[in-house]
Amino acid sequence: MIMQNTLTAAVLLIGNELLSGSIEDRNLAHIAKTLEPKGIRVRETRIVPDIADEIVAAVNALRMRYDYVFTTGGIGPTHDDITSDSIAAAFGVNNVVQPDVFDIIDKYLHAKGVEFTPAAQRMAHAPEGAQMIYADQSIIPGYRIENVFVMAGVPRIMRIMLEGIVRHLNTGVEILNQQVHANVTEGEIAARLSAIQATHPEIDIGSYPQDPDSTLSQFRVIFIVKGTARDEIAQTCQEIAEACKALGSGVEIVD
Amino acid sequence: MIMQNTLTAAVLLIGNELLSGSIEDRNLAHIAKTLEPKGIRVRETRIVPDIADEIVAAVNALRMRYDYVFTTGGIGPTHDDITSDSIAAAFGVNNVVQPDVFDIIDKYLHAKGVEFTPAAQRMAHAPEGAQMIYADQSIIPGYRIENVFVMAGVPRIMRIMLEGIVRHLNTGVEILNQQVHANVTEGEIAARLSAIQATHPEIDIGSYPQDPDSTLSQFRVIFIVKGTARDEIAQTCQEIAEACKALGSGVEIVD
Repeated sequence: MIMQNTLTAAVLLIGNELLSGSIEDRNLAHIAKTLEPKGIRVRETRIVPDIADEIVAAVNALRMRYDYVFTTGGIGPTHDDITSDSIAAAFGVNNVVQPDVFDIIDKYLHAKGVEFTPAAQRMAHAPEGAQMIYADQSIIPGYRIENVFVMAGVPRIMRIMLEGIVRHLNTGVEILNQQVHANVTEGEIAARLSAIQATHPEIDIGSYPQDPDSTLSQFRVIFIVKGTARDEIAQTCQEIAEACKALGSGVEIVD
Repeated sequence: MIMQNTLTAAVLLIGNELLSGSIEDRNLAHIAKTLEPKGIRVRETRIVPDIADEIVAAVNALRMRYDYVFTTGGIGPTHDDITSDSIAAAFGVNNVVQPDVFDIIDKYLHAKGVEFTPAAQRMAHAPEGAQMIYADQSIIPGYRIENVFVMAGVPRIMRIMLEGIVRHLNTGVEILNQQVHANVTEGEIAARLSAIQATHPEIDIGSYPQDPDSTLSQFRVIFIVKGTARDEIAQTCQEIAEACKALGSGVEIVD
């Protein structure tokens, strides 16, 4: 299940609201699906509260272990927006004003007749040494410091920032996947599935039973087959499909 | 923002599919919302792949730091279901058959005319010393080992297991919350909000700007106010509402 020639990433979601269930994350899946075609695989995700020590500890743990770290949340102007201060602390540098960003926000707000408050000016700060990454439609850029990329938490803005960021990433071999949907129980297919997995060590087979009300499939189990070799993924799906049919199940292969 | 007389929890979501975005987690929010009325606050969440070393490291890091750890996923019969083996390894014990669970599953499958395969028998295993926790509608119990609670990943089953588990938890003072919805920008409200937060150190005020297509509110910003003192939460919401009105915004307070 080690995929050759792929890169690894961690995602750090920052915000009390995500931990308390008040707001459900909509960013992780989008980040993962954006990165996989670039050959970058999300290998760990952490969700931490708006507490500086927690953010610093998580950033430092993750940036040492993975090729890239992507953070979301905590870059607005309010008291609970402490991501840039914390990222700066993690790297042992100051969180300083970025003159270009300051000018852009200043002009934007001036044109709208909105005061550029000291609080809002915090949005023009980033850790010393950070490289601003502008995207076409965003006023406030995401930024990079070493292998850490910092993005907004609001999904619409995060997506715009990520579009800008992916152009700057080293890429690996595209990670591909196909799914097999079937009406078998995991208990009856498990031994055969294990044997199929063993003959395809560079393919990653996952097995996911579905609730009756699942919106993902009308079948009882989804097998997700991932890897970098298109032919071997298709071959693996065929073998799983045959095993399900042998148990009397209807089968659907989904690209 | 330290809430007195509350307990802390971490959630560990196990599964490649959650990291790759193939399947979006539906368990974290439910767990957090179930625990908060019991005075237990989720303080950290990690999502790790189906790799034993990663699960062991995360379990050991989290169980030392928080009062409780709740895991979801990886307790089925297939090759990628390695949670119980990993939890056992984290505690330095063996993953052993649980005779009562074995008998229950055996009878259940026998009545349905389904073979109890060696793979399915893995579902009757749990770490030595684990305490099985049965819920009314579940064949397969969740279990507890010290302060770690192990549950299924399928949301319907996880919810049943959690219902059984919460009866066994020590509880704290109920965590309450109210929301203020308003059409202000975070930049213009930030200074006032910061002052309100400073006068209520035991209340936790979060500020969450919404996308135009947000399903959570028709207003531009949601302020979430949490704490254990009902009167102080209401007072804090009033102060935020007044500050928003002073900026010319309509305001809604949501329980």
